Amino acid sequence: MSDILVVGSLAYDSISTPSGKVDRTLGGSANYFSLASSLYAKTRVVGVVGEDYADTDMKMLTSRNVDVAGLQKRPGKTFHWAGKYEGDLNEAITLATDLNVFEHFNPELPVAYKDTKYVFLANIHPELQLRVLEQIEKPRLVGSDTMNFWIHSQLPTLKKVLSKVDVLLINEGESKLLSKKSNAIAAAKEILAMGPKAVVVKRGEYGFVLHSKEGYFVLPAFPIADVVDPTGAGDTFAGAFFGSLAKADVAFDLHALKQACIHGCLLASFTVEKFGVEALKNLTWADVEARATAYDRVITP
Amino acid sequence: MSDILVVGSLAYDSISTPSGKVDRTLGGSANYFSLASSLYAKTRVVGVVGEDYADTDMKMLTSRNVDVAGLQKRPGKTFHWAGKYEGDLNEAITLATDLNVFEHFNPELPVAYKDTKYVFLANIHPELQLRVLEQIEKPRLVGSDTMNFWIHSQLPTLKKVLSKVDVLLINEGESKLLSKKSNAIAAAKEILAMGPKAVVVKRGEYGFVLHSKEGYFVLPAFPIADVVDPTGAGDTFAGAFFGSLAKADVAFDLHALKQACIHGCLLASFTVEKFGVEALKNLTWADVEARATAYDRVITP
Repeated sequence: MSDILVVGSLAYDSISTPSGKVDRTLGGSANYFSLASSLYAKTRVVGVVGEDYADTDMKMLTSRNVDVAGLQKRPGKTFHWAGKYEGDLNEAITLATDLNVFEHFNPELPVAYKDTKYVFLANIHPELQLRVLEQIEKPRLVGSDTMNFWIHSQLPTLKKVLSKVDVLLINEGESKLLSKKSNAIAAAKEILAMGPKAVVVKRGEYGFVLHSKEGYFVLPAFPIADVVDPTGAGDTFAGAFFGSLAKADVAFDLHALKQACIHGCLLASFTVEKFGVEALKNLTWADVEARATAYDRVITP
Repeated sequence: MSDILVVGSLAYDSISTPSGKVDRTLGGSANYFSLASSLYAKTRVVGVVGEDYADTDMKMLTSRNVDVAGLQKRPGKTFHWAGKYEGDLNEAITLATDLNVFEHFNPELPVAYKDTKYVFLANIHPELQLRVLEQIEKPRLVGSDTMNFWIHSQLPTLKKVLSKVDVLLINEGESKLLSKKSNAIAAAKEILAMGPKAVVVKRGEYGFVLHSKEGYFVLPAFPIADVVDPTGAGDTFAGAFFGSLAKADVAFDLHALKQACIHGCLLASFTVEKFGVEALKNLTWADVEARATAYDRVITP
């Protein structure tokens, strides 16, 4: 087992879905990711929070096997996102993005973090993703995520990141935007040619597409009839994906990547059952094992 | 092995997709269905064509193990549909629907068809679906399809059909419409309560959801990077689904239903690679077996 490092956002989110609404609930890619990954392996978080960030939220992370030595606390407020979902819950409508302390975030790794073997660059400015990579000594596996905003505004820098990562994990819609292709299968193929050794297209309720030079691996999400809040499902997927690989302590192995994708699905299926990180906060390994058995039943002919 | 009966449309379609366009190509649910199902078991077709229906198109069916004794030829023109696809190909935009001889279609089964064991009622007026069922003596398995038009305009009659069929095969969008649910998992659950013993939600490029009292079985479509024309993929799925069950000669067996869904995916993956029924017309059992092996590789952890 090796340690994991995630660089991403810590936030308070205000979310409205057909199931209800929550105000200023704990969120951000680094929170979802680390709460999922830390079920598998010790996880180090690099990010920034404001003075309003609750001690209880910080302690919750440490109680869940997350190392918060890389978290910076800065004058000002924590990143805040407000959004809503309508209809089929596949797309979030952003109502407000208050970057606050996140606007001037400059990821600086504690010396003790520089030897981390499994590194995930969540959806932040590609320039900052590169800055993190420069501080890492000999990573075994590097993954990244991105979003439409960076694809539109920072494509050359983003492509530089893609040339340096092993795995890109990306939403289906954004995979089409990045590749200019009209389906996830063609998109994954095109993105593979941009540098990464593997591409994982996250398809929400439809699961994922993993593509590497050894071909495609495609499975659906675990079936959930009552999706309460899809926020963070993609970051949860990435967390479990990295967790699974770090726990197995392997780098680029097709069988391990497949298992990692399945664990991505399993943990994401818990996240969507409750608002924010509520489901992840209390998740046990026994829950994961039970769902793995249930998932196996769902996909086995 | 038992015979299959399909009642549905035979048409000439004019289709435009990002890959090109075709004018008055052979189409209609009964053509797609029977070209797929007849690879597995002898298939009887009940439908109506106009005087313009080409002898070569009729002979093509008979050359593919399809019994056309139940086809009526009527004065007038064959059903014509014109449609186009844009962007991600998930939704057809109908440009014209000329019912022609299909408008006064009254399905009458040849006496020799009345003992058919596997019966599929493709997307036609639910009143006609009921009329077909009245003519069948002791079916082993009855399936049906439907569409938004009948859900909106003929719901009571459609519900009567649902109370009499074993399996409903339905598009994802229409499953949500029929169930008033916002995802396919919840929709399948709701529809199961309307009568059928199993529901198959067809999700296009995302595969299918099979739901019965024994739970969910969910798998993705076979990955196709270059989808040329999605028309008929759902009817092809239904054809292979029924073909697989009739070949195995079983009625309601969970393992057989799962295999039937997989065969639905396999054959639909060929259909979308070419315009109209072009791919199905020349398909061999060896092609199906090769794709089954490839699909297995794609979904096996």
